[in-house]
Amino acid sequence: MPIAQIHIMEGRSDEQKERLIEEVTKAISRSLDAPEANVRVLIDEMPKQHFGIGGQSAKKLGR
Amino acid sequence: MPIAQIHIMEGRSDEQKERLIEEVTKAISRSLDAPEANVRVLIDEMPKQHFGIGGQSAKKLGR
Amino acid sequence: MPIAQIHIMEGRSDEQKERLIEEVTKAISRSLDAPEANVRVLIDEMPKQHFGIGGQSAKKLGR
Amino acid sequence: MPIAQIHIMEGRSDEQKERLIEEVTKAISRSLDAPEANVRVLIDEMPKQHFGIGGQSAKKLGR
Amino acid sequence: MPIAQIHIMEGRSDEQKERLIEEVTKAISRSLDAPEANVRVLIDEMPKQHFGIGGQSAKKLGR
Amino acid sequence: MPIAQIHIMEGRSDEQKERLIEEVTKAISRSLDAPEANVRVLIDEMPKQHFGIGGQSAKKLGR
Repeated sequence: MPIAQIHIMEGRSDEQKERLIEEVTKAISRSLDAPEANVRVLIDEMPKQHFGIGGQSAKKLGR
Repeated sequence: MPIAQIHIMEGRSDEQKERLIEEVTKAISRSLDAPEANVRVLIDEMPKQHFGIGGQSAKKLGR
Repeated sequence: MPIAQIHIMEGRSDEQKERLIEEVTKAISRSLDAPEANVRVLIDEMPKQHFGIGGQSAKKLGR
Repeated sequence: MPIAQIHIMEGRSDEQKERLIEEVTKAISRSLDAPEANVRVLIDEMPKQHFGIGGQSAKKLGR
Repeated sequence: MPIAQIHIMEGRSDEQKERLIEEVTKAISRSLDAPEANVRVLIDEMPKQHFGIGGQSAKKLGR
Repeated sequence: MPIAQIHIMEGRSDEQKERLIEEVTKAISRSLDAPEANVRVLIDEMPKQHFGIGGQSAKKLGR
């Protein structure tokens, strides 16, 4: 029963997030030889001012 | 000082979440023989399109 | 499909951890009116020198 | 490549969160002798009714 | 800078874990149109008695 | 009650980890104007083959 949490920056479309769930589930299933039905994927979407890269938020860095 | 993070799907009432905190705190306290005052519970409420079950989001699955 | 991660200090017996899984699962099921079969509990057992309380590790604090 | 996730209660200003990223990054860099550029900080801001302290939410406790 | 944490049960080979990192990194990169070099994957390998499924540990369930 | 989880690669000394707890606690306390006594720091030390950077483990990359 593999469980993945994925932290991403805000700004992706619903289609991209649906694809992320599908592709990561398949990748885990293939690598570990585990049934896709058992895989869980949790997306944690973060505001740019909450994501720090090298000491500054992604918002401040203009990303 | 046990710390629990609980990932749940959006849609629960404030009363359910308050009860979740209370019941899980007591369950941890009883099981580990730790004072209730030391237990922390963090609820992470997730949108249905961020929760992947077997390769599709709960939203797409109609849950 | 609620998923709980519980961070505890090292030193609990296998019986206590088995009971922790059982009791927390029931507490989540009761509070959220979710089937017990759908609940996942992940225990993260931490060495005392990895758990900081108020600026010092539990090991240094003699806990 | 140290990665820190920090769970805080809602209510802090953008300036406080920017300072949190900067100060924690420097603290990690100093302690581990790691380049600041390699440090990531993820802030998880929680509503008061999602943060349980001793069996009740911070909201119910009036914090 | 997407960051994935993957919780898996103990018992996989080093080759499977290396493949897991590679496949999940590519899956995230493809889905989000993000450079592979920016993706981080953290594997959290759990003992069977720490993984609760429906109220019992995987160890007790004989998995 | 801020709670920080810090994922680091294996190989740091007990002194470095004790300093990490102390420095990060002070950094959080200063930035958020919160009492040091309320801060919790959890260190998650990861084997090099469990830490993926750009699609390969740190072990394979020779870090």
